[in-house]
Amino acid sequence: MSDTDNFLDDSLITTETTAPDSMAADQPMGGISDRAATRQARELSVGERPGTLTVREDSLAPRLFLISYDEQFFEEKEYTSYDEMLAFFHAHPQQRHWIDVRGYGDLPLMERLMQDFDLHPLQMEDVLGDYQRAKVEQFDDNRLFMVSRMTEFTTLLEIDDDQLSIFTGPNYIISFQDDYDDCLDTVRIRIRSGFSKIKQKPVLYLAYALTDVVLDHYYPTMAAIGDYIETLEERIFKGRADRRVLNRILHIKKDIVRFRRLVYPEREKIAEILRMPDDVIPEEMKLYFKDCYDHAIQAMDLAESYRESVSSLVDLYLSDQSNRMNEVMKVLTIISSIFIPLSFVVGLYGMNFQREAPDGTINRLNMPELYQPWGYPVLLSILVVIVAFQLIYFYRKGWLSNR
Amino acid sequence: MSDTDNFLDDSLITTETTAPDSMAADQPMGGISDRAATRQARELSVGERPGTLTVREDSLAPRLFLISYDEQFFEEKEYTSYDEMLAFFHAHPQQRHWIDVRGYGDLPLMERLMQDFDLHPLQMEDVLGDYQRAKVEQFDDNRLFMVSRMTEFTTLLEIDDDQLSIFTGPNYIISFQDDYDDCLDTVRIRIRSGFSKIKQKPVLYLAYALTDVVLDHYYPTMAAIGDYIETLEERIFKGRADRRVLNRILHIKKDIVRFRRLVYPEREKIAEILRMPDDVIPEEMKLYFKDCYDHAIQAMDLAESYRESVSSLVDLYLSDQSNRMNEVMKVLTIISSIFIPLSFVVGLYGMNFQREAPDGTINRLNMPELYQPWGYPVLLSILVVIVAFQLIYFYRKGWLSNR
Amino acid sequence: MSDTDNFLDDSLITTETTAPDSMAADQPMGGISDRAATRQARELSVGERPGTLTVREDSLAPRLFLISYDEQFFEEKEYTSYDEMLAFFHAHPQQRHWIDVRGYGDLPLMERLMQDFDLHPLQMEDVLGDYQRAKVEQFDDNRLFMVSRMTEFTTLLEIDDDQLSIFTGPNYIISFQDDYDDCLDTVRIRIRSGFSKIKQKPVLYLAYALTDVVLDHYYPTMAAIGDYIETLEERIFKGRADRRVLNRILHIKKDIVRFRRLVYPEREKIAEILRMPDDVIPEEMKLYFKDCYDHAIQAMDLAESYRESVSSLVDLYLSDQSNRMNEVMKVLTIISSIFIPLSFVVGLYGMNFQREAPDGTINRLNMPELYQPWGYPVLLSILVVIVAFQLIYFYRKGWLSNR
Amino acid sequence: MSDTDNFLDDSLITTETTAPDSMAADQPMGGISDRAATRQARELSVGERPGTLTVREDSLAPRLFLISYDEQFFEEKEYTSYDEMLAFFHAHPQQRHWIDVRGYGDLPLMERLMQDFDLHPLQMEDVLGDYQRAKVEQFDDNRLFMVSRMTEFTTLLEIDDDQLSIFTGPNYIISFQDDYDDCLDTVRIRIRSGFSKIKQKPVLYLAYALTDVVLDHYYPTMAAIGDYIETLEERIFKGRADRRVLNRILHIKKDIVRFRRLVYPEREKIAEILRMPDDVIPEEMKLYFKDCYDHAIQAMDLAESYRESVSSLVDLYLSDQSNRMNEVMKVLTIISSIFIPLSFVVGLYGMNFQREAPDGTINRLNMPELYQPWGYPVLLSILVVIVAFQLIYFYRKGWLSNR
Amino acid sequence: MSDTDNFLDDSLITTETTAPDSMAADQPMGGISDRAATRQARELSVGERPGTLTVREDSLAPRLFLISYDEQFFEEKEYTSYDEMLAFFHAHPQQRHWIDVRGYGDLPLMERLMQDFDLHPLQMEDVLGDYQRAKVEQFDDNRLFMVSRMTEFTTLLEIDDDQLSIFTGPNYIISFQDDYDDCLDTVRIRIRSGFSKIKQKPVLYLAYALTDVVLDHYYPTMAAIGDYIETLEERIFKGRADRRVLNRILHIKKDIVRFRRLVYPEREKIAEILRMPDDVIPEEMKLYFKDCYDHAIQAMDLAESYRESVSSLVDLYLSDQSNRMNEVMKVLTIISSIFIPLSFVVGLYGMNFQREAPDGTINRLNMPELYQPWGYPVLLSILVVIVAFQLIYFYRKGWLSNR
Repeated sequence: MSDTDNFLDDSLITTETTAPDSMAADQPMGGISDRAATRQARELSVGERPGTLTVREDSLAPRLFLISYDEQFFEEKEYTSYDEMLAFFHAHPQQRHWIDVRGYGDLPLMERLMQDFDLHPLQMEDVLGDYQRAKVEQFDDNRLFMVSRMTEFTTLLEIDDDQLSIFTGPNYIISFQDDYDDCLDTVRIRIRSGFSKIKQKPVLYLAYALTDVVLDHYYPTMAAIGDYIETLEERIFKGRADRRVLNRILHIKKDIVRFRRLVYPEREKIAEILRMPDDVIPEEMKLYFKDCYDHAIQAMDLAESYRESVSSLVDLYLSDQSNRMNEVMKVLTIISSIFIPLSFVVGLYGMNFQREAPDGTINRLNMPELYQPWGYPVLLSILVVIVAFQLIYFYRKGWLSNR
Repeated sequence: MSDTDNFLDDSLITTETTAPDSMAADQPMGGISDRAATRQARELSVGERPGTLTVREDSLAPRLFLISYDEQFFEEKEYTSYDEMLAFFHAHPQQRHWIDVRGYGDLPLMERLMQDFDLHPLQMEDVLGDYQRAKVEQFDDNRLFMVSRMTEFTTLLEIDDDQLSIFTGPNYIISFQDDYDDCLDTVRIRIRSGFSKIKQKPVLYLAYALTDVVLDHYYPTMAAIGDYIETLEERIFKGRADRRVLNRILHIKKDIVRFRRLVYPEREKIAEILRMPDDVIPEEMKLYFKDCYDHAIQAMDLAESYRESVSSLVDLYLSDQSNRMNEVMKVLTIISSIFIPLSFVVGLYGMNFQREAPDGTINRLNMPELYQPWGYPVLLSILVVIVAFQLIYFYRKGWLSNR
Repeated sequence: MSDTDNFLDDSLITTETTAPDSMAADQPMGGISDRAATRQARELSVGERPGTLTVREDSLAPRLFLISYDEQFFEEKEYTSYDEMLAFFHAHPQQRHWIDVRGYGDLPLMERLMQDFDLHPLQMEDVLGDYQRAKVEQFDDNRLFMVSRMTEFTTLLEIDDDQLSIFTGPNYIISFQDDYDDCLDTVRIRIRSGFSKIKQKPVLYLAYALTDVVLDHYYPTMAAIGDYIETLEERIFKGRADRRVLNRILHIKKDIVRFRRLVYPEREKIAEILRMPDDVIPEEMKLYFKDCYDHAIQAMDLAESYRESVSSLVDLYLSDQSNRMNEVMKVLTIISSIFIPLSFVVGLYGMNFQREAPDGTINRLNMPELYQPWGYPVLLSILVVIVAFQLIYFYRKGWLSNR
Repeated sequence: MSDTDNFLDDSLITTETTAPDSMAADQPMGGISDRAATRQARELSVGERPGTLTVREDSLAPRLFLISYDEQFFEEKEYTSYDEMLAFFHAHPQQRHWIDVRGYGDLPLMERLMQDFDLHPLQMEDVLGDYQRAKVEQFDDNRLFMVSRMTEFTTLLEIDDDQLSIFTGPNYIISFQDDYDDCLDTVRIRIRSGFSKIKQKPVLYLAYALTDVVLDHYYPTMAAIGDYIETLEERIFKGRADRRVLNRILHIKKDIVRFRRLVYPEREKIAEILRMPDDVIPEEMKLYFKDCYDHAIQAMDLAESYRESVSSLVDLYLSDQSNRMNEVMKVLTIISSIFIPLSFVVGLYGMNFQREAPDGTINRLNMPELYQPWGYPVLLSILVVIVAFQLIYFYRKGWLSNR
Repeated sequence: MSDTDNFLDDSLITTETTAPDSMAADQPMGGISDRAATRQARELSVGERPGTLTVREDSLAPRLFLISYDEQFFEEKEYTSYDEMLAFFHAHPQQRHWIDVRGYGDLPLMERLMQDFDLHPLQMEDVLGDYQRAKVEQFDDNRLFMVSRMTEFTTLLEIDDDQLSIFTGPNYIISFQDDYDDCLDTVRIRIRSGFSKIKQKPVLYLAYALTDVVLDHYYPTMAAIGDYIETLEERIFKGRADRRVLNRILHIKKDIVRFRRLVYPEREKIAEILRMPDDVIPEEMKLYFKDCYDHAIQAMDLAESYRESVSSLVDLYLSDQSNRMNEVMKVLTIISSIFIPLSFVVGLYGMNFQREAPDGTINRLNMPELYQPWGYPVLLSILVVIVAFQLIYFYRKGWLSNR
């Protein structure tokens, strides 16, 4: 939760300077133009040969983890050698195994995994492409290929999403992701702790547990977004919203919409699992997946709710902008309305109409006020009265209060 | 209805000061950023172990009520001891019972209830999580697990919703809620009064009656919202709408949308009940649930109607803002247009062109007006005429009336 | 049609003054806040006991009409005594009867009707609640309970809707409405005239004819709305649109949306009738109901069309508001741009730089213009040229024309 | 295409004056308020007796055409006497016939047609009502009743639509329309020319050809709308968009939406034809209707595309309006910002502070500048510098360029 | 990717001048009015005779390519004589062939192709019309007719789309397109290279490969659009957005919506292929098409994402426009508010109230300030203080910073 806390204090600007690449100064932060989408489009346009494995250039070097367990047994190890891991795996046919591959950056290794565990090239392509929507596919009769998308609200104030691909086998599952740190640690901890249900149930339960933990991780993401929206709202309310705030609003709006589009296929995926025959997904497991289904719907409801909030923020921002314009105009109007008439009056008595004509006759009608003993004080009083009336008028209109 | 009345008088500001935590001064009242959603997201992200009961920290200490009845029999009592209640329950197998649990804050008790009444851990998790959408699940052949959401329009001027979970059994229902006060009292009163249909029918009718009363309670919520919208509209019409009013409009809009999202699954739930086989829901009961279904649709229609109204309020607010700007500009324009030309004229006759050149020659063309005997009065008359023409012009344009 | 004509002349303001309760002066006319919805919500929240008849307080005292007919026979009478009517009814088992109940304000009578004609309490509750959406229910094998909503565009410039409930029996129909005047007179006239198809066909045809006449009555309602929208548009075009006009636009928009929501279930109702088995609705009758179905769709299309028009009106209003602002600004700009520079120039020659220094030396550079014989006329000419150039500039920009 | 060309030149205003009834001066051109819909609503509310034929008052006097043909035979004639036509028709039972009725204004003739060709009263009512959506109905086992709507973009710059009703029979079709000129001439020409497929195929093919030609006629309508939208866009771009342009935009938007609503049931109609059993529509004919189906979808896509364009035009118009306001404000700001400070400076040296006090003492501090020999030239230089700085500032802001 | 790079530098204006026909100066670039749609509508309205082949006038002269291959064999050649090609084709019945027709501009050749390969006239009409949505049709039992739309983001900064039509046969496919350059080269290269899967599989795989490559080509199109949107966003952020930028935004928005409408039937097409029986599409091929299906959905997701971005750009533009207005007003307000009061003050002391009345009496109250020795310096100090206060006020309001 610490990621989201540091914008709860009022140091949004500070946060920006510590995240130089995305939020520097006046540059757009890839705000509205959907850079993630563009990157994705570009990646997807690379591998044009169907069923041919290619690894994206920025993929991490793979790290192999193996968690082997049954009700009594437990061993967890990171292997540097794939063969060593495979040997251990084959040596324990009675145990259940979780082969946990993090990083795709070694094409030959990926191809060996594909062959050793009978994965389909098109599925493996989906794994390595890293931009696959959540889905489930049934293959080899009763094996499953499941893709989930893990989300995180990053310090760059945007939603980051990573792909988790899971293949099930008779006594193992293989999971792939291109990230060393993930949100699956709660599952690992539960396996390590002796009493978890995971140990007592078939590997499908482990696959379920991983799917469920990904779904559950949507909530902190949403909560962080909720906090962020609150910060933005406060910012507008304190009258400190400039167009960078609008940019952020539009940015997070886009992210929320994207999030919704991430979760939607997740729901479809689980609905499809629930429709699968009982020999693939036993009735008892369906009860658990039904629970997942409820969670997915709730996540979508939340996303919908935030989308609504963000749309309202845009309205609020625009109204605020208009409000400030109003205020500017009011200052101009008040000052002009008071002083322009006064200027006229004093200009009037700055005229040079001559009491004495060139021929010496006296024009008594030419500005006699100027020669009255009380002329000047009377005029000043009149000016004061004018101002007073105007101020009363503006006060009544409510223009003097700071609405 | 008293909750909604106190904003019908014009004391909206007073209402605010009496609700300091949510509406203080200039602070946003959690208006647009959906704090309820954020809280929900945070709660939901806590319990990550599926099927493991946890109790939210702010849960109330449980209070146990038992209403036992048949056509002749009636007993209603609050029990401090669960065992005592259970004893009474088992001692009356011929009667029908309503076990009414209010407050979740005692995990062991919750677990005992779960075991004694054969509730599924995942269902119990839904109960305690308190953020479950309305749904119905059939379990153990013909038992039902039903979740409803009870709504209320609070003095904080927002919609509050609580969860009511009902399990049916052969001769009992168990209801759970995390609130001591609820909207179910009308049902209790009907049971107490001797002649209620509830007493004559199986417990399913009681479950129906509770579902129905929750649905019926949506209408006063809606009516309160309707009154509130009317207050906001009047506020705009009296020209007293500042941005806090906009905030409230956006806030209530969000709440209405949320309300609609609450009711929608309620409708789905009842539709699912209507599709259930006749041995679970007898034909006669379906007639009653069909009535519920109509009510749910009507509630959604109302919500839709209010959503439309609130959207129009936003339009009205923005137009009003623009109107006020218009008014400000008109004042500026009228005053400037009148006095700036006048200032020029008086400035003209404030110039110092000399009739007598330094060499003593007379320049008769240099401002001869200044030496005319009627110069000043004629000028004043001209000024009056200019002003009169301008005023006529502005009057014709309709700028002087207060449109 | 006379209701709609009186706003076709330009007497909208007059119309207002004759409808004091809804359109007085500056008060909102319950415009945007959906008072009808609020009233409905409040009504619906009253009767919380399902299946218990209650009568709304403002219900009219019932009036009973009986039209009895067959191909030869015809008798029409208003009965003050229910028993008398029932006696006549039972005395003519060979005839077909239309029992026409107008006004609900007599609970015992309603209960007797319910018992004598075997109506279900829940259905009777729908009748008396008066807020039921259009629907059809099949009961007692082949009897029908049909609810229609009759609409009218009132002199208050809003859509009023009333409920018409029809029960069919073997040789009679009973209709309920809480209004003495209705739109069913065309049907009554057709029965009275000897040659109507109604007399030759079973009572179901009468039920159809009533349903059809309600649907047909949607068109004059729509036509009146269309005329009203036209009036509003003209109002905007004549530049006489103030915010009350916006209020009306938003009000009628809301009403149109509500109308659409009234008609939609009407369509669903007829679709359900068309799906009913042939022994309930004979094939021949379905042809007639199919015609109704087309009419319902057409009414929805019209409503949709008007909704679009009204949305455009809002756009037009807002643009008009912006236009008027533009005009105000142009006046300000033209006058300021012309006179502020002129004021500077005349101010320039109002300066007091002295040709003669205190020590008597002549500063020939200090404003020599003031001493030229043609100084003043030349300056005036220059001022005229400046103004001319500015006017040409503004003319070219098109700011002088009244766009 | 000539209808659409005359707004391609810049003579939109001319076009207006030549179409006085719809576009005169400042009057709304029935723009936004949907007069066609209102007329339709009013028409539909007239005939309230189902199955009773009535003819609209403005119906044309009927003209009867008969085209009779088979592979060898061809005869085409306008008949003034219905009996004569019927005689010819019955005398040629081996040929195929197209009875082409244009104009409905003769009720007895319509009734005779109905009886002689076994048409259903409700269908005939749909024909004469002239406001029926596109639909198809199967009657008398394998006869069809098809309604199409023909569209045209008129010189009044709006979409006009007429109804074409077709009944099929064993060796004839009857078509009804209330217009002497139509878009079916291409079909007639194809029959006249010896080699058309129409002559070789059963009459259903002729019905198809008529349906297809109506659909194909949607494209020139759309093309004309496209040209018109382009004209409107250019108008905005040349800065000559006043609110009449907005009115037209909103008007054409409404028309496009209406067009879409016309085409949608056309698609549904063809889809229903495709679902009909093979003995009604032979497999070979379905291939042709499938082609129609594609065309209907394409027409809807085009309409959708134009709707999008028109919405963008509204955005563009509003932005343009705002732009012009901006420009007005910039002129005001630049001129005011330059001359108001200058006016202050020259006003400063117009003050009358006296060097010589009344008692004769010299106040050297009172405006010594006025007595300097270079005072005036130095001041003028300062003024020039101030103006230069301001101009540079405004240039840098880009306010001087005409953005 | 080079097409998209040249707007990444800041030479958007240059790009315009190099594309004179579409983006010249101030003329609209066919921006909002959908010229492509209009062209399409016009084309479609030409050929009104169903099943009659016509070739559009601007069609290219056809070029014929034949690629013949099996696992061992490969020959690729452009034929100038159709007969020669046909001879080669018939001489190699054991090989698989790709007949690649580019350009439609030779009607007799098209008709020969239609007859020699048993293509249906209506299908051939779809090919030559060039505006067919993506679709698949099964004909002659198990042959397929597939239409795809190939997209490209052109240097004119809009999406161009071309039609690719494919007919399958037992051992050949025929592809039609009206363009010499296409996006299918990757497939050709793969066939040329010895080891492609295409060589090992039946021709259906080739048809799949072509479909897939078209789909994959959507991604670079999308990526180019993404880059373009980014450029537009930067443009707004640098404050250099004039209405041409808005035009571009609305233009690209329209294009994205059109793109979405292109891709949607593509998805439907593949869904239909997946539903085809196994003897038409073998199970193995369906796996590949399933992959296509995922890609189509992803392309639609991307388009949706960009549509959202572009909508946000419009918001940003409008807000920016409003912002600039704000800025203009602030400059005006600050300068006016400072100098108008000052002008009044100096005007005050420019008045000519006379100390000495005409009769020689001294009016001590008439502007005694003017005779004080420190009068002028004190006044200047007061003016400085007023300005200082105003600047502080404006600074506090934040109007001096460049928000």
